[in-house]
Amino acid sequence: MEETSLVRNGVDIKKLIGTIKAVGTDPALGKFQFRVSNQWVNGGFNKSYIKDFYGAGQADNTRNAPFTCANDEPGVLLGQNKAPNPAEFVLHALAGCLTTSMVYHAAARGYKIRRINSTLEGDLDIRGFLDIDGAERNGYKAIRINFDIDGDFSAEVKEAILNMGPSLSPVFDIVRNGVPISVSLSNTAKEVEIDC
Amino acid sequence: MEETSLVRNGVDIKKLIGTIKAVGTDPALGKFQFRVSNQWVNGGFNKSYIKDFYGAGQADNTRNAPFTCANDEPGVLLGQNKAPNPAEFVLHALAGCLTTSMVYHAAARGYKIRRINSTLEGDLDIRGFLDIDGAERNGYKAIRINFDIDGDFSAEVKEAILNMGPSLSPVFDIVRNGVPISVSLSNTAKEVEIDC
Repeated sequence: MEETSLVRNGVDIKKLIGTIKAVGTDPALGKFQFRVSNQWVNGGFNKSYIKDFYGAGQADNTRNAPFTCANDEPGVLLGQNKAPNPAEFVLHALAGCLTTSMVYHAAARGYKIRRINSTLEGDLDIRGFLDIDGAERNGYKAIRINFDIDGDFSAEVKEAILNMGPSLSPVFDIVRNGVPISVSLSNTAKEVEIDC
Repeated sequence: MEETSLVRNGVDIKKLIGTIKAVGTDPALGKFQFRVSNQWVNGGFNKSYIKDFYGAGQADNTRNAPFTCANDEPGVLLGQNKAPNPAEFVLHALAGCLTTSMVYHAAARGYKIRRINSTLEGDLDIRGFLDIDGAERNGYKAIRINFDIDGDFSAEVKEAILNMGPSLSPVFDIVRNGVPISVSLSNTAKEVEIDC
């Protein structure tokens, strides 16, 4: 009975297959735009508000209130430790997206997952941020991720599930390959556009 | 009196200058390692635990309990909307890091900031994630960020403060330029290493 269930790994298979079919037929349904607004509070403490996005051909209105997420820094980085810091949030996003990519695609292929745990490490030298040494990059020099995956499948299937992460995860692609970012300034007589 | 204050923009200037001096003298103090562990719960819902890190020459032990952050997906992406999704967390991290970079470096240069607000948009086509069209990248194709910065300074200084973000922010560098990521699998007879 398990195999004919319409929910696998917590994913509604009928809906997943329907989504793949719909987006395959009408590519415009694949276009998404995610949005965040952020407000500085004090020092290294700031808050993001996350609610609206565009996707599947329309503005989404299923979130009644925004999610509020804070960033802060630990004391050694002159903050008050009220929240994780932005570099830690990158690892959070990466872990979540890789896991969801494995879970959804394993579900579509009929693999029932019992457990996915991951640990992530990112190496960063703050001499870049402190503008001490121009030769150091500002961001992570390397990220290592270890996955512990469990389910009733062979070692080969487990490796195949692992590979669904890096090969399909949006955030993996973002953090691995980089994204063009444009930064602009509002409320000035002259608009400044930094295209990177 | 304002100008001689040791706290500017919520940043302890004496501590900031002390940090720059200490790391400049002993480069080993600049090495940081951030860590996140993540646990899959169900479907697109998973949780990260963020507590320990290494930095400034020692293991940090100032956080008594881990921060817990969830990822989920909205209904249209087969989730239950319990939390922002990982791609939204990337924008959150980016906003926070750019803002903190501006705030800290403006403080070091004597500029008092009254307000920083930002709005971010990221364009993504889920045909990549859904494995529908191999030509589409999985992650964001473009990110646009607009800053509203206010304080008692000239338009030129405001532009200089804006530039401190992209030129110094660790997360901007990560998301703009990409990071080498290695993914491994534990608890298997054979260790699988995907070096990307």
